[in-house]
Amino acid sequence: MSDASRPIAILGGTGPAGMGVALRWARAGETIIIGSRDTLRAQETAGKIKQKAGNQASVSGMENSAACAATDLLVLTVPFEGQAPLLKQLKPAIRPGSILIDATVALAASVGGRASRTLGVWQGSSAQQAAELVPKGVSVVAAFHNLSAELLNGDNPLDCDVIVCSDDANAAQLTRALAAKIPGIRAIDGGKLENARILEQITALLVGLNIRHKGHGGIRITGLPPEAYK
Amino acid sequence: MSDASRPIAILGGTGPAGMGVALRWARAGETIIIGSRDTLRAQETAGKIKQKAGNQASVSGMENSAACAATDLLVLTVPFEGQAPLLKQLKPAIRPGSILIDATVALAASVGGRASRTLGVWQGSSAQQAAELVPKGVSVVAAFHNLSAELLNGDNPLDCDVIVCSDDANAAQLTRALAAKIPGIRAIDGGKLENARILEQITALLVGLNIRHKGHGGIRITGLPPEAYK
Repeated sequence: MSDASRPIAILGGTGPAGMGVALRWARAGETIIIGSRDTLRAQETAGKIKQKAGNQASVSGMENSAACAATDLLVLTVPFEGQAPLLKQLKPAIRPGSILIDATVALAASVGGRASRTLGVWQGSSAQQAAELVPKGVSVVAAFHNLSAELLNGDNPLDCDVIVCSDDANAAQLTRALAAKIPGIRAIDGGKLENARILEQITALLVGLNIRHKGHGGIRITGLPPEAYK
Repeated sequence: MSDASRPIAILGGTGPAGMGVALRWARAGETIIIGSRDTLRAQETAGKIKQKAGNQASVSGMENSAACAATDLLVLTVPFEGQAPLLKQLKPAIRPGSILIDATVALAASVGGRASRTLGVWQGSSAQQAAELVPKGVSVVAAFHNLSAELLNGDNPLDCDVIVCSDDANAAQLTRALAAKIPGIRAIDGGKLENARILEQITALLVGLNIRHKGHGGIRITGLPPEAYK
């Protein structure tokens, strides 16, 4: 499983979602690298997260390529329109055998539409597009689409399940363990990577519910046996 | 709102989902008409539901067209492959001003594929296909996709939210009130009918989770203010 010897690089980590998971994992004792196009901005964001997480927290900032070179556990938290360009750029930097956890959602907002609607992605989902763009031998996992960035950046436990989809069972298990380190979260095996399309759609539904009802929506799955969360 | 003077006709009501909502609404004091292609089968199913719901329950069985003629509050619980043929057949029978609550999900099982995958529906969702097929002036509401038929047919309260989507605000409100009559269910306004596509996808996700984890999955939305459930 993940430990301090295997840092987590959060690519596009200066946005609210990236900062949110970084904060929660830093508090859980993980070593975090914030990745950004701009090294200085990455370092500034790392400083902010460290301030919130406490001085014992291990959070540094690097340019995205350097972050990929520094570890083999990558989390991608960029808007959909940034996903393909960034993965193409990082292809030479991503280490063989890396795990890429993708939280991208193809919201129509990426092309000037609504954040409560999605675009059709040829491959089926953003995560499957990512799988096509990473170097051979890199495992893609889809997860963390349905968490409120605002709540992640707060101090309270979350009231949300994280459904994890991947074609690599070991990478999925590691991701579920990472998810479960965020207080309040239960992680569930959601099957193959192709199922990511549904997780991504749920984000658009939650965005719509948030606008309509002025909330910070998340989801819980009910009716599964306790073993489902292991 | 719905009351005993406005019966609820459940078209395709002899299947497990139709029987389940019929049972719950019959227990709540609603007048239920089970619709089926076959009058005798409808009456037999009505008898079974009445037996479970108690003798004071008002449940009758009719052929689908007769059920449409008898009331203007219709619930459609058929497999996707049955939706378009049935609505085309019932077009002359559906009364002007009726409300059609559609729970159809375009699972790939309809064409021999998996129940954990969906088909693309040209109109965007099964509910939008229904809206195209009903007579003018009939309001379509999408709801009740994500409830376990097995749990509905049991005696315990459900642990599930029902997200209701429609372009007719009054029809949506009536549907939310009906949903809230099922013990344990909270109803949420999910916006326009076009959002039904996401509710339908969630069913495929739940089917996959049920197979993988041997459960009867449902969903709860978290993080919304209490007003969202009114």
